Amino acid sequence: MNGSAWDKIPILSDKIGILSHVTKRILVASKTQAKPVLGIVGVGLIGGSIGLAARRSGCFGRMIGIGRDQANLRKAIGLGCIGEVADNLESLARQADIIVFCTPVDQIAEQILSIAGKCKPGTLITDAGSTKTQIVAQVEERLLDDVEFIGSHPLAGSEKRGAEHARADLFDNRLTVVTPTPSTRPNAEKRAGDFWRSLGCRVTSMPPDEHDQALALTSHLPHLVASALAGLLPKDLYEFTANGFRDTTRIAAGDPALWTPIFLHNHVELADATLRLERRLIEFTQALLAADKTTLTHLLAEGKKVRDDLGS
Amino acid sequence: MNGSAWDKIPILSDKIGILSHVTKRILVASKTQAKPVLGIVGVGLIGGSIGLAARRSGCFGRMIGIGRDQANLRKAIGLGCIGEVADNLESLARQADIIVFCTPVDQIAEQILSIAGKCKPGTLITDAGSTKTQIVAQVEERLLDDVEFIGSHPLAGSEKRGAEHARADLFDNRLTVVTPTPSTRPNAEKRAGDFWRSLGCRVTSMPPDEHDQALALTSHLPHLVASALAGLLPKDLYEFTANGFRDTTRIAAGDPALWTPIFLHNHVELADATLRLERRLIEFTQALLAADKTTLTHLLAEGKKVRDDLGS
Repeated sequence: MNGSAWDKIPILSDKIGILSHVTKRILVASKTQAKPVLGIVGVGLIGGSIGLAARRSGCFGRMIGIGRDQANLRKAIGLGCIGEVADNLESLARQADIIVFCTPVDQIAEQILSIAGKCKPGTLITDAGSTKTQIVAQVEERLLDDVEFIGSHPLAGSEKRGAEHARADLFDNRLTVVTPTPSTRPNAEKRAGDFWRSLGCRVTSMPPDEHDQALALTSHLPHLVASALAGLLPKDLYEFTANGFRDTTRIAAGDPALWTPIFLHNHVELADATLRLERRLIEFTQALLAADKTTLTHLLAEGKKVRDDLGS
Repeated sequence: MNGSAWDKIPILSDKIGILSHVTKRILVASKTQAKPVLGIVGVGLIGGSIGLAARRSGCFGRMIGIGRDQANLRKAIGLGCIGEVADNLESLARQADIIVFCTPVDQIAEQILSIAGKCKPGTLITDAGSTKTQIVAQVEERLLDDVEFIGSHPLAGSEKRGAEHARADLFDNRLTVVTPTPSTRPNAEKRAGDFWRSLGCRVTSMPPDEHDQALALTSHLPHLVASALAGLLPKDLYEFTANGFRDTTRIAAGDPALWTPIFLHNHVELADATLRLERRLIEFTQALLAADKTTLTHLLAEGKKVRDDLGS
């Protein structure tokens, strides 16, 4: 896509009036100075939202996407998530200054390694995968020195899929965890932090294994539980569900093609988190069978306290 | 409250334009013909919403409430959930044609029995409790013949409490289960059905024990699981929660003072439902530890199918 075509795409941030003076100066400067080219690999809900938020920020020049589903990519262009589609991953790699991989977690490392040596020197590579240990280890084992890599995980999403559900505000005030290791170049951490902040995120950093341990409990276990609960429901009881069942099982609608790889990447930590939940369910069961009002009240009050503290 | 004061309260249903011609005729007829007096015992989220929906229907005359929290009752009057507050339960019983008990499940039977013999002959008594077997058995064992009783459970609600969260549309298109037994008079089932339909509900009927068995899985277990999951979360992981954890645990914010009695009333069925969930969690755990992709995909796909079928 050339500059004039790009200019025709309305800048969302202008429309919703949130452009800061600084961003406006960057946009004005852009008439003479090249802005970094963003490459998005996998332009679904997350990749598409990254595109919309990146465009809103005004910090990026061309935005190039790639993915398997051509119909989805056409939608992504129509919605303004990306400006153009690359012919192949190598072509995207040759053009981009920042590349973010938003593909299923079992594909990310392999895809990153497939473009090493084809990127411009100094390209920042990161990802949006829900697990980090395995991806980061695989990439660091073989990645060449001429690019900068750090793992990332923006804690935002939905059970929905596809660019059509992308939102420019998906990351606003959400936390992104970046996961440096002793091999990570300091510059990569700073650049990745700046990238996610430009999309609206808050950013924190922690080692990959600590990330996976935390997310086993805060994200992967809820998905497992929601799925287990939904899977128990026989058809003749559907009509007896109300908001409670629907809220508690909502994320079970997520795609197994995305979630099975997440579960496998984090299988030991997730099994541990699931066993902790099972122990707590056994406490409930014993209290129920004993009609033990004190213990039931205590268990329910503990859950309520955490939920109230979390806010809506 | 006298008739003229009542007339000053705007009829919500007129404002939102949903009055049917039939209802309008009833309203016109009301100038000359007394409409049934509705008594609401416990004017919280459910009782308050019953009041708002009843007023919207135009089918009722005076609406009298009673409850323990005077500040909440003043709010309920201010919001139009009820028109007046009874001095005591006996006074409410003497005046009402239909009385609905919206108190915690461990108080309902005792409160109903306390007014037997003080009601007008033919008064319809029902409730909105989330459990039915114990309540219905206790009431039927001792209730006098001059009133009509049937248990009810509208499948609507929220983790919020108090008349301030009441909504006139809370019951629109929601299912209410009425639970007749061989002792129930046929007229009571018809009258209770008409009552809930006038609030916007669909109505079905089933025996109390079948209700409790179904609701153990569709309502009480989700609450238990949400609470167990929330209760596992240590404070230092709060910041790593996103929508998934929040949706899955939302109902854990419900009041233990309401939920412990529900759990105790239905403790055997709920223990059974919890054990079924534990078995499914063990299937997940075993598949995780074995890194068994096929089984994980299968389990997740089963959950997704149910959740997709349920709709949003």
